[in-house]
Order: sequence, then structure tokens, then C-alpha cells
Amino acid sequence: MKVKRSERLIDMTRYLLERPHTLVPLTFFANRYDSAKSSISEDLTIVKKTFQERGTGILETIAGAAGGVRYIPSISNEEARAFIEDMCARLSEVDRLLPGGYVYLSDLLGQPAVLQKIGRIIAAQYLDKEIDAVMTVATKGVPIAQAVSNCLNVPFVIVRRDSKITEGSTVSINYVSGSSNRVEKMELSKRSLKRGSRVLVVDDFMKGGGTVDGMKSLIEEFEAKLVGVTVLAESTFPGKRMVDDYSSLLCVDEVDVRNKSIHVKPGNYFDDIQ
Amino acid sequence: MKVKRSERLIDMTRYLLERPHTLVPLTFFANRYDSAKSSISEDLTIVKKTFQERGTGILETIAGAAGGVRYIPSISNEEARAFIEDMCARLSEVDRLLPGGYVYLSDLLGQPAVLQKIGRIIAAQYLDKEIDAVMTVATKGVPIAQAVSNCLNVPFVIVRRDSKITEGSTVSINYVSGSSNRVEKMELSKRSLKRGSRVLVVDDFMKGGGTVDGMKSLIEEFEAKLVGVTVLAESTFPGKRMVDDYSSLLCVDEVDVRNKSIHVKPGNYFDDIQ
Repeated sequence: MKVKRSERLIDMTRYLLERPHTLVPLTFFANRYDSAKSSISEDLTIVKKTFQERGTGILETIAGAAGGVRYIPSISNEEARAFIEDMCARLSEVDRLLPGGYVYLSDLLGQPAVLQKIGRIIAAQYLDKEIDAVMTVATKGVPIAQAVSNCLNVPFVIVRRDSKITEGSTVSINYVSGSSNRVEKMELSKRSLKRGSRVLVVDDFMKGGGTVDGMKSLIEEFEAKLVGVTVLAESTFPGKRMVDDYSSLLCVDEVDVRNKSIHVKPGNYFDDIQ
Repeated sequence: MKVKRSERLIDMTRYLLERPHTLVPLTFFANRYDSAKSSISEDLTIVKKTFQERGTGILETIAGAAGGVRYIPSISNEEARAFIEDMCARLSEVDRLLPGGYVYLSDLLGQPAVLQKIGRIIAAQYLDKEIDAVMTVATKGVPIAQAVSNCLNVPFVIVRRDSKITEGSTVSINYVSGSSNRVEKMELSKRSLKRGSRVLVVDDFMKGGGTVDGMKSLIEEFEAKLVGVTVLAESTFPGKRMVDDYSSLLCVDEVDVRNKSIHVKPGNYFDDIQ
């Protein structure tokens, strides 16, 4: 039975939003709604326009026999900026200050709406890059990796400092923690990453950059390629950082344990854009 | 400027899907689209019908001055069943068998589409329950907790076996691992769970149930309430399990390390439904 335009638009929107970066042929929708391809094509023009106007993302149209549409989640600069400024304010709350000058982030990293925004903001940076997998290190990087992987519609892999029996064979490397200068070990399940994969590294926090540098070594060990590094927050670091090329959404630039104050400013995320 | 119905439907669908379990007043949409409340009301009737017909979920309408609409993600029994059967087949692949009779799950727990389905299936079980937080244990439970928390639109909290300096003060308990009978420790950041919270516990795998039992003790320690326990997979367990009341999506019922075979069947998830 032919489905009305109004119902088609609703279901199409839902279908596309659930499958970012996936090419959906027009014939799929034509069959699903028992409608002419020309009607589907008109529908998609409206969806495209609305997504664009509302900052939902891009609806890419690929012409030809193997063509179709593909939804690419994105976020407007204004929305990203407003979110990051809000996060700066929230992270600057005094009661987030922990002994040793650390900042309590776990509550924010457990809120679905916050994670979805972080995912969209990070993914938006890599729209023109081909990415096969998102990599992070357990535990606090996991929610960020999952949020980004949702937007890019690629799998994420979790590097662990302690490997478990449930990971099967692993590849491990040693790395130097940038802030404490200790040698540590990290490992990744051998079957979790294919040779030649293009990998995006994400993490919650970067101080000296040792952990991220360790993940870079692991990527080499797997004969995979690093596409980019984005962290939720970096802190100003007195020494030489082990990683130069990265982006950050937030920067914790002043932590005064004695006077109990934190100051958080936007990271270098917008530096390229302006 | 007044927005056309077709554009309203697309943007409304997107807006509602992004905010499950959130009450959106009709006036919000009326202002957003510069349209009469009566038109918005008609729009929502179409959205509701389409969501229902396509198994997307329920659009709940609350009448009155404080009213509005609320999107509740769900999944049809057929879709859940098809997914679980597909997972059974995939988990029964011989190369998932690890030494000690463990099953390799990490690849599936890194796939966004798989996780979204798992989230919807687990959340669908608790539609009539009030839930304030989802709890899991690091590391492999995290992606499941995040997926469920996305659907329920509540935060998730991560219990850890090793607490980090970045968690602040923690509450820790000792628990007996059901399968190895060893006493272990788990802890949760003190500020991550409010007293009286109603908590849903999820995890990737349950053998003896010791870990889940530990989380139950932690919930008591926080003076919170347990709403339910759902695990992705359980394995048949020779002894007495430490947890009785739980649901599972999958059940690993035969692992033969010598002959290299695994058999996975649907868990008890559908037992209540049939």
C-alpha cells in the first residue's frame, strides 16, 4: 500500500538518522513506501533542506545506478561553541577539584545528552576523512569513543592497561607516561583491528600525552594508520608534550589546589576554523 | 516565519528521537515553527501513528497545561527476536572460543548498530519502571550501559575494580566472585549516585553472578534501590548462582573446548513475554 508523504518523511528521517554514513539507495525507499522514485526524490529534497536549515547534518546525494542518499551528522559552529562554553563553565565548578589537581569528569561522561554532543562535535572535525575505527583507552575514554563511533558509524576498539582473558591474544606495547615518566604497558586484542585500518584516537583527558603516544605506537604495531587525535580536555603541561598534532575541546588552564580554583577555557578545536 | 508541515514533521521527528523520555510541551513546537498549536497537534498524531506502525516506539501524549509529548523508544518483539537469533548464530562461530571456555565478544561490543539494538531491547523491558541511573562494571559493561542509558535518557555510572585518582572519594565493597570463589573489591565514586536512586544494573556476561551481586551490595551501600538486572549473555553455571532475578538476551549453553564448539541460544528475555 502506498504510504503518504507525511508518513514517508517521518519514517525516512528516522531511518536515515539511525544509519549515519550509510548509503541508502532510492529504490530501497521506493519499495519500502510503495512509491515512485520521483516522489522519494522530492521527499529527500525536503529532508535535505530541513536538515541543513536546522543544523542536523548533511544529506549527501549520490547520483547514478549505485547511488542513493547518505546522512552525515554534523553540528553548526554556533551550537558547538555554545556547548563548549557551557562545558567550560561546568568544569570550572570548584567542587570538581580533586587532590593532585585532577578534575572530576565522570558525571558528565555518564550523561547521554552530553556524550551525544561530544560525539557530534568530534565527528564533525573528520567529515572529509576516511575512518575505519575509533580507538581509545579504558575506562574513561570508552563513552567518548562510543559516542564518536555512533556518529561515524564505524566500530570502536578499547585499549587496556590490564588485559583480560576475554580479549583473546593481544598485542602489547610499553609506553612512557608523559606526566609521571613511568614505563607502563597497554594492550589491544589482536583481532580487534585489521591491518591498514584508518584509526581516529580519542580520549577524555591529556596531560603529558604519553597515553596517546602509546596508542600511536599500538597503531603502528598493527600496521594501521593514524587519522587524527582528539581529546575532550587537555591541561596545560609544563614540560614538552609527547604529542603535537591533536585537537581538544576543552583546556584546563589553571588549577590552584591551595586556593581551590579551576579555570577551563575552550581547547584548540576552533583554532583551525576561525 | 511559519514552517511548512513537511519540514515540521522532519524536524519534529529528529527533535523527539534525540530526546527520549523527555516531555516536550506543544507550545515549544508551536513557537519553534511559528505554527498554531492545533497544527502541531495534528502533526504529532501523524508522528505517533508512523512511529507505532514502524515499531520505532511510542509517542505518549500528556494532556493539560503541563502536558506535551514524550517519545519512548521501544522495539517490536519480532525485531528483538530476529536480532537475538542473529546474535546466537554469530556467537556460535567457533573462532570466538577462547582458552578457558570464554567467548570473544569485544568486536560486537564495539559496533554502534549492535549496541543500539541491545540498548533498545534492554530498555524495552523497563518501560513501566522508573529508572534514575544505569550501573555497570568496567570495562566491557560500559558500552552496554551507555546504549541503554541513551534509550532511557538517564545517566550511567561505572563501577571499577581499580579506582583511579580521577574518581575522587569512592565507596568500596568486597564481593565473592561466583565462578572463582575469590574475594575481590569494587568501588564507585561517592558522588556518582544519589541516595534513593532507582538503579538498573547491566553487564556483558554473567557466570556465577558474583559481579552482579557485588553491584547489588554497592547499591545498598549507597542507599539506592535496585530496579532490575539484565545481562547481554549468561552461561549455564554448574553451581548455585548468586543472583536469581535477572534477565539475559543470550545464553551460552555449551562450550566444548576440546572439540572446539560453542552453542548459544536465546536467554530468558522472552520467557516473560510468551
